[in-house]
Amino acid sequence: MPKRSRTHMCGELRKESRGQTVRLSGWVHKRRDHGGLIFIDLRDKTGITQLIFDPERGSTFHDIATKLRSEWVISIEGTVAERKEGMHNPNMATGAIEIEVTALEILSEAATPPFAIADDKTETSEELKLKYRYLDIRRGPLANNLALRSQVMMAIRRYLDEQQFLEITTPILSKSTPEGARDYLVPSRLYPGHFFALPQSPQIFKQLLMISGMDRYFQIAPCFRDEDMRADRQPEFHQVDIEMSFADPDTLMPLIEGLFKTILSDVKGITIPTPFRQMSHAEAMETYGTDRPDLRFGMELVRLDDIVKDSSFSLFADTIKEGGAVKALCVKGGATLSRREIEKYIPLVKSLGLGGLAWLKVGESDVTGPIAKFFKPDELAAMQKTLSAEPNDLLLFASGKESLINQALDHLRRHIAKERNLIDESRLEFVWVVDFPLFNFDNETQEMGSEHHPFTAPHPDDIDKLDTDPLSARSLAYDIVLNGYEIGGGSQRIHNQATQRKIFELLELTQEDIDEKFGFFVEALSYGTPPHLGIALGLDRLVMILCGAASIRDVIAFPKTARASDLMSEAPSPVMKHQISDLHLELHQDEK
Amino acid sequence: MPKRSRTHMCGELRKESRGQTVRLSGWVHKRRDHGGLIFIDLRDKTGITQLIFDPERGSTFHDIATKLRSEWVISIEGTVAERKEGMHNPNMATGAIEIEVTALEILSEAATPPFAIADDKTETSEELKLKYRYLDIRRGPLANNLALRSQVMMAIRRYLDEQQFLEITTPILSKSTPEGARDYLVPSRLYPGHFFALPQSPQIFKQLLMISGMDRYFQIAPCFRDEDMRADRQPEFHQVDIEMSFADPDTLMPLIEGLFKTILSDVKGITIPTPFRQMSHAEAMETYGTDRPDLRFGMELVRLDDIVKDSSFSLFADTIKEGGAVKALCVKGGATLSRREIEKYIPLVKSLGLGGLAWLKVGESDVTGPIAKFFKPDELAAMQKTLSAEPNDLLLFASGKESLINQALDHLRRHIAKERNLIDESRLEFVWVVDFPLFNFDNETQEMGSEHHPFTAPHPDDIDKLDTDPLSARSLAYDIVLNGYEIGGGSQRIHNQATQRKIFELLELTQEDIDEKFGFFVEALSYGTPPHLGIALGLDRLVMILCGAASIRDVIAFPKTARASDLMSEAPSPVMKHQISDLHLELHQDEK
Repeated sequence: MPKRSRTHMCGELRKESRGQTVRLSGWVHKRRDHGGLIFIDLRDKTGITQLIFDPERGSTFHDIATKLRSEWVISIEGTVAERKEGMHNPNMATGAIEIEVTALEILSEAATPPFAIADDKTETSEELKLKYRYLDIRRGPLANNLALRSQVMMAIRRYLDEQQFLEITTPILSKSTPEGARDYLVPSRLYPGHFFALPQSPQIFKQLLMISGMDRYFQIAPCFRDEDMRADRQPEFHQVDIEMSFADPDTLMPLIEGLFKTILSDVKGITIPTPFRQMSHAEAMETYGTDRPDLRFGMELVRLDDIVKDSSFSLFADTIKEGGAVKALCVKGGATLSRREIEKYIPLVKSLGLGGLAWLKVGESDVTGPIAKFFKPDELAAMQKTLSAEPNDLLLFASGKESLINQALDHLRRHIAKERNLIDESRLEFVWVVDFPLFNFDNETQEMGSEHHPFTAPHPDDIDKLDTDPLSARSLAYDIVLNGYEIGGGSQRIHNQATQRKIFELLELTQEDIDEKFGFFVEALSYGTPPHLGIALGLDRLVMILCGAASIRDVIAFPKTARASDLMSEAPSPVMKHQISDLHLELHQDEK
Repeated sequence: MPKRSRTHMCGELRKESRGQTVRLSGWVHKRRDHGGLIFIDLRDKTGITQLIFDPERGSTFHDIATKLRSEWVISIEGTVAERKEGMHNPNMATGAIEIEVTALEILSEAATPPFAIADDKTETSEELKLKYRYLDIRRGPLANNLALRSQVMMAIRRYLDEQQFLEITTPILSKSTPEGARDYLVPSRLYPGHFFALPQSPQIFKQLLMISGMDRYFQIAPCFRDEDMRADRQPEFHQVDIEMSFADPDTLMPLIEGLFKTILSDVKGITIPTPFRQMSHAEAMETYGTDRPDLRFGMELVRLDDIVKDSSFSLFADTIKEGGAVKALCVKGGATLSRREIEKYIPLVKSLGLGGLAWLKVGESDVTGPIAKFFKPDELAAMQKTLSAEPNDLLLFASGKESLINQALDHLRRHIAKERNLIDESRLEFVWVVDFPLFNFDNETQEMGSEHHPFTAPHPDDIDKLDTDPLSARSLAYDIVLNGYEIGGGSQRIHNQATQRKIFELLELTQEDIDEKFGFFVEALSYGTPPHLGIALGLDRLVMILCGAASIRDVIAFPKTARASDLMSEAPSPVMKHQISDLHLELHQDEK
């Protein structure tokens, strides 16, 4: 038997194939002995097929079959038989058939794995799963995620290729830049004391490609950030990096919407409606307290400043006087919560910097709660109206500095939505967040900085504001948000030198600063730069959402831990002394 | 005029469009003033269109047009007109038309570039071109190479996707391994004294993916080697990395041939014949002196040991006695070369370690040359017969250690082929080189080593030789060679633990050595490894050949110099002190 040529994968056979001679290869998933009969579940990444070794039918290989153990790799030849009445397994794609084995070859034995592959419900520690990642993948769910990731990448490439984008790979050994997050550095052996940096994004390279006339570029680019890992980050990640010339957001947005339409259609068979909703940054902050609004549910933030500013509830009234704000959420049907249940929300908002949380319950004919007595009936009525509150709703109030209440109410809104099952997990709610501010103001340093980077184009309607009130000027930056995750962002870039000079002036950058911070790139912009813009999409996050995975780790073949190490290969690791000295470096005294 | 919406690219318009109103954007390639008329060649990456500003036809924008300079970026609207009789330019795709401009907008002015874009025949220094790479790309030929590279990558991905391969990205921050070339290291900030290494190839990861059951994997993977750069290498390069399970070379080879068939058909419209020729490593060395034979021309190496071993030419006879060899080339028509011209080959072979080069000219009825007198007529006749020599041919002889004469004659053969125009540059000659030796022997250390790596499967016909004569055992390794370049290589891997143990024993590796050198990977192999094999193709080299480029630098957007630096961004570069100390490192005393 030619041991390596399969006729079918293990998930493929159906009863229509009965009587056929087939060859399968795979892993022994389970073995069961039933009075002489041996059943083997044979597994590959497509599924499981039941094999049967029957000594009475003269199976020559029955004796060998008794030796088989879990995870051994075998190759078999046999005849497809329909299972007997009542023995069909409707939970298995191949549950109507089994293979009567006529030839068996053991390709590879297996040591007992550190956790059972057959049962992926086993409570295996996260550490052990990462150390034996290759076995965890063999269990199935991760393999399916990786397959979906591959499909997504293929869909992206097919679509962008059709749209005349060229995929161009840019250097990974690149230059350290003083802006942005911390770089991973790569010491140079040939240039003592010099370092490469791994790119945080190919931003400069893609703009250079536009200057070079390449017109439409993309790349699924590996990017790197040596951050202190919070939440669900990886030190290396992939970004779908896109840039195009002679275009503006009105061209780019439909193109990116088409990209998502293609991805969803290719990998999920879903048709998503386009164009996507657009929301200004100001509206997103006002209504959701965040620039990444999750639109799968309502419960919007509502401003109550005007209603409460003259109330006798001095906490609210004083907050408004001091330049703060009062905003509230209306929890539908939340009035059934006990005081104790409601007060469980307080630590959450306190951890985000709020002093506390006020609340009211709306009854059929009255409004109750600790702060009810401070408000006049018309104030209470106005609140209910503004919040569209109905009997049995719960109103939650936050007061204080606007940025703090936005942050706290955003978290609270998502927390309650999850708690009360308000989120339809099957929905995909895309939204463009647009009209970001061009600048921000650092209260500590009392300096104005770029909200994105100094090459972001100002909004054409706000050019005059650059002179009069630059902090109110909007930019042509945009984010794309899906289900509350920012899955991408970009901007129109400045192509005009006069505008660029203006922005540098506003940022109070001297020529020396400019040279030091942006180096050769500013020179490159001077040699005839086309109007251009782009976007970068977070591939890992997108695939995570499409897989319904809980972490981006689950969509990366060999991820790092939250402390940036690979438990499987044990990287990073010590190296030989000469490897360090070859790089003209030595370890700090205390590390030797 | 909406300044960014083009109706056409600059290389698209033909006379069929006459009368149409069009909008184009691009760079001012050239401006010519002819008595009031202004002609502008407008360029983008697709080509050039001639614009005409005629003051008599009342072109409002004529005055602005006089200000235009080379490389300014403009957008125009105008009417397509057929050029007058005799004014057609057959050398331009758009040479039958011109645009009578009715509206013009200057999008971006341009400083004078350091070299002219319009004339790519200018002698610009390599350094200047690399420093202003984005302008060199704008000239056209490099842009075309990058477009072809993108097409090749797309063709590869489409084909492998159809063949059920999944693209899986593997870590770039990975582990330093003691084997192989020098690693680029990345110091870890979180783990003092620990380092990541950039991967030289994803070899271990792809084998792990087979162990994990992913079945068919590919990746166009960035790889890194900190080598002292010789010839045409880059510190980072891309490799088409492929691995498959439950298969053998008889499955893999046709699949890879299909891949090349697809690439050539997609990007060149060429149908290449398959299957490719296969040649054993032994035959390649014997007949071409190299395992990368260029089969676009003949002039094979011919062994003359038996003919010359008893001759009176003691140099040859003694060489054979001492275990050396004598091989020769027959240069068709080469007898017209003068002694002086022939002797020009001597420095070439001497630089490769040979003592010299002997030669004979074949005449109509005699054989002449410095060494002719040492041979009997029947010896000369036998040489001519063996070499298929005809009158007017030149015979070149090398004697000495076999490895040296192979190396020298390989170089000489290619040198003469180029010199005498024997190479049909339009031909694509693919060949599989197979049956590599499994082991090699290091004369210095007197130790046996793996020719490829210790996971390479032995040839099934040579299993017995592992015990009796391991150095004569062949492996299941294979290279794919195109026009004398090794464009890829791979092997069947060992999946059977008994075989793996045998190989480790032959290499005299202790368990400690194994753990240290191959670490967790050997453990992974124990948990049920399917038969698997793979190949890695050098993308840069392949694209270089397909572009007819002279260097792999010409097919990489932003390459490094031969000294591993990027002249454009000036990487590597010094970094801030704290960046180094954050990594628990300091510079060597003399570098501070």
